[in-house]
Amino acid sequence: DASASFGEVVNAPWFLVVDLMGTVAFALSGITIARSEGYSIFGAIILAWLPALGGGLIMDLIAGRNPPGILAQPAYMYAILITVLAVRAVLWLIDLARGRWLLFFDLVQIYVTARRRLKPMTLLVVFDSLGLAGFTVTGVFTAIQFNCHPLELWGPAFAMMNACLGAILRDVVRADAHNPILKGSFYAEIAVAAGLLLSLFVELAPPAAVGYGVVATLLVVPAVRLMLYRRDARAPMF
Amino acid sequence: DASASFGEVVNAPWFLVVDLMGTVAFALSGITIARSEGYSIFGAIILAWLPALGGGLIMDLIAGRNPPGILAQPAYMYAILITVLAVRAVLWLIDLARGRWLLFFDLVQIYVTARRRLKPMTLLVVFDSLGLAGFTVTGVFTAIQFNCHPLELWGPAFAMMNACLGAILRDVVRADAHNPILKGSFYAEIAVAAGLLLSLFVELAPPAAVGYGVVATLLVVPAVRLMLYRRDARAPMF
Amino acid sequence: DASASFGEVVNAPWFLVVDLMGTVAFALSGITIARSEGYSIFGAIILAWLPALGGGLIMDLIAGRNPPGILAQPAYMYAILITVLAVRAVLWLIDLARGRWLLFFDLVQIYVTARRRLKPMTLLVVFDSLGLAGFTVTGVFTAIQFNCHPLELWGPAFAMMNACLGAILRDVVRADAHNPILKGSFYAEIAVAAGLLLSLFVELAPPAAVGYGVVATLLVVPAVRLMLYRRDARAPMF
Repeated sequence: DASASFGEVVNAPWFLVVDLMGTVAFALSGITIARSEGYSIFGAIILAWLPALGGGLIMDLIAGRNPPGILAQPAYMYAILITVLAVRAVLWLIDLARGRWLLFFDLVQIYVTARRRLKPMTLLVVFDSLGLAGFTVTGVFTAIQFNCHPLELWGPAFAMMNACLGAILRDVVRADAHNPILKGSFYAEIAVAAGLLLSLFVELAPPAAVGYGVVATLLVVPAVRLMLYRRDARAPMF
Repeated sequence: DASASFGEVVNAPWFLVVDLMGTVAFALSGITIARSEGYSIFGAIILAWLPALGGGLIMDLIAGRNPPGILAQPAYMYAILITVLAVRAVLWLIDLARGRWLLFFDLVQIYVTARRRLKPMTLLVVFDSLGLAGFTVTGVFTAIQFNCHPLELWGPAFAMMNACLGAILRDVVRADAHNPILKGSFYAEIAVAAGLLLSLFVELAPPAAVGYGVVATLLVVPAVRLMLYRRDARAPMF
Repeated sequence: DASASFGEVVNAPWFLVVDLMGTVAFALSGITIARSEGYSIFGAIILAWLPALGGGLIMDLIAGRNPPGILAQPAYMYAILITVLAVRAVLWLIDLARGRWLLFFDLVQIYVTARRRLKPMTLLVVFDSLGLAGFTVTGVFTAIQFNCHPLELWGPAFAMMNACLGAILRDVVRADAHNPILKGSFYAEIAVAAGLLLSLFVELAPPAAVGYGVVATLLVVPAVRLMLYRRDARAPMF
């Protein structure tokens, strides 16, 4: 059946790699904020954890997944911790290097030059788009695996929760009233649309074709997200 | 037993109607805010979802209801989506009609005149009061159904969660530090008091009489809420 | 096995006393805020509930404890309600007494003199430190009881959730962007460190010795917390 075929795809090793890449990208978005708003290392872990794993936890609790994914697969939690501590270590080395060690100074120079050339945050947005795609697929998969009917409702709902709810919660914890995902950034809408299309594809296509739908989602979602980001497109307002 | 008798009442079709009316009324309260504070359509769905279904979800998770109500009965989720999109469509038609089509212009005129005569939001407050009553009953019913003892603690607690926690969360997501339900609006207190009285009634009255308690709650709670609203009564401060 | 031996300690009556003392202390921290920021009595209950029981509820949901602790043991919920109402009653008596009854006036005089001598909030911080210790132990115990592997990840994670997450949520509900636990107050770091050490001790020490680890945690954590509080120590920033 479709569930089995779907399972083959999302349990493949390359899928875990995409999922962890998304986790790290979402964690980096929290870390960037922690750096600029004066959070402690503990605060940075919370701000990194929320967008990466917070939405998926709520989805798991609604779906009745027991234990939730973060308990079943510790790699996600370790990915957050390692990302936060690695970034802290790199920042510490850069601080150390400023005007002292020639080698580090050169590296910093390269980094600064690279930043000036690239549109700021481009690399982060690319990772983030991969995360959006991977988390959309995992969200729809969770709805299928836990028989959440109708799939055309819960597929997009879980895709949105998995990919966006944590980032909304991160901004709630920061008491930020101008939550971009809720106020016009084109982000959650992509997860909902892709989750709906993938859900309909899974329902209508033959089970053997499900893998193509997953691959298409993983290719099209980042492309759409990056295109909308470059054009600075705004989501439809209420 | 009381649980069975209670179940007959809350599973009756007319009860689902009251419950959905409450859901729509609570959703409208979020939509009104989304309109005035510049949220996207997606943001409006979140702001509508939270007061209507957010508190009930947390109650279901605490009670161990598996699957939670929103999964078991998709009508609630669809009620939110339809409400948001219908209001958006009406707003769009009103925008279209301004100064263009005579028929629509007349309708707008009637609407504007009606608004000037009525105390603002009166209709919304009436719906909202029905929702408060219905959600109070469903909250107490959940505590009974899932054997949450003592009922005189969990009946009012679940009534409050079901009817008010989501609206608190809506204001938390908006990063609004002046959360009226927590700072003196007479609202959660009504759910707690009505939940306590209904719980005591269920515990003490003969099972056959339980339905009268439900009907009394559905009649008295809106009356009390509307009376307190008209008098602008303030809840006791700490 | 370790779980049994651990259970003997945390199920002992004196442990419930420590745990309830922590609950009351955490509730008082919320009540203090409710008083100074104009919350209603209902709002004060929410602000008292969150730091005391909110983090533990989320921990229970992740661990799959069914029913969650607050449902299984109503004493925690009653402790919150009694604390809020008792403080309200005392405040009302003090208001009544001001300049009226000689006996009360003397008591107020003693209270005011005591406050001037003591560093402000000292007693609250002592209770709060006991709560931090007790909730750290209960958090690690929950990770053991529900087989959350690896324990060196989930022991400290649950200790932190149980002891600190609720206080973070309390400040989220207040829409306070300067959440001290996330921005440099030495607090969550103590729970994480103590939770990690206790987890490692439980894994490595013979089962019979587990009780000593619990007692050591209950003694060392408050001492460290009070020392860091007196020195106004700051947690490492990101």
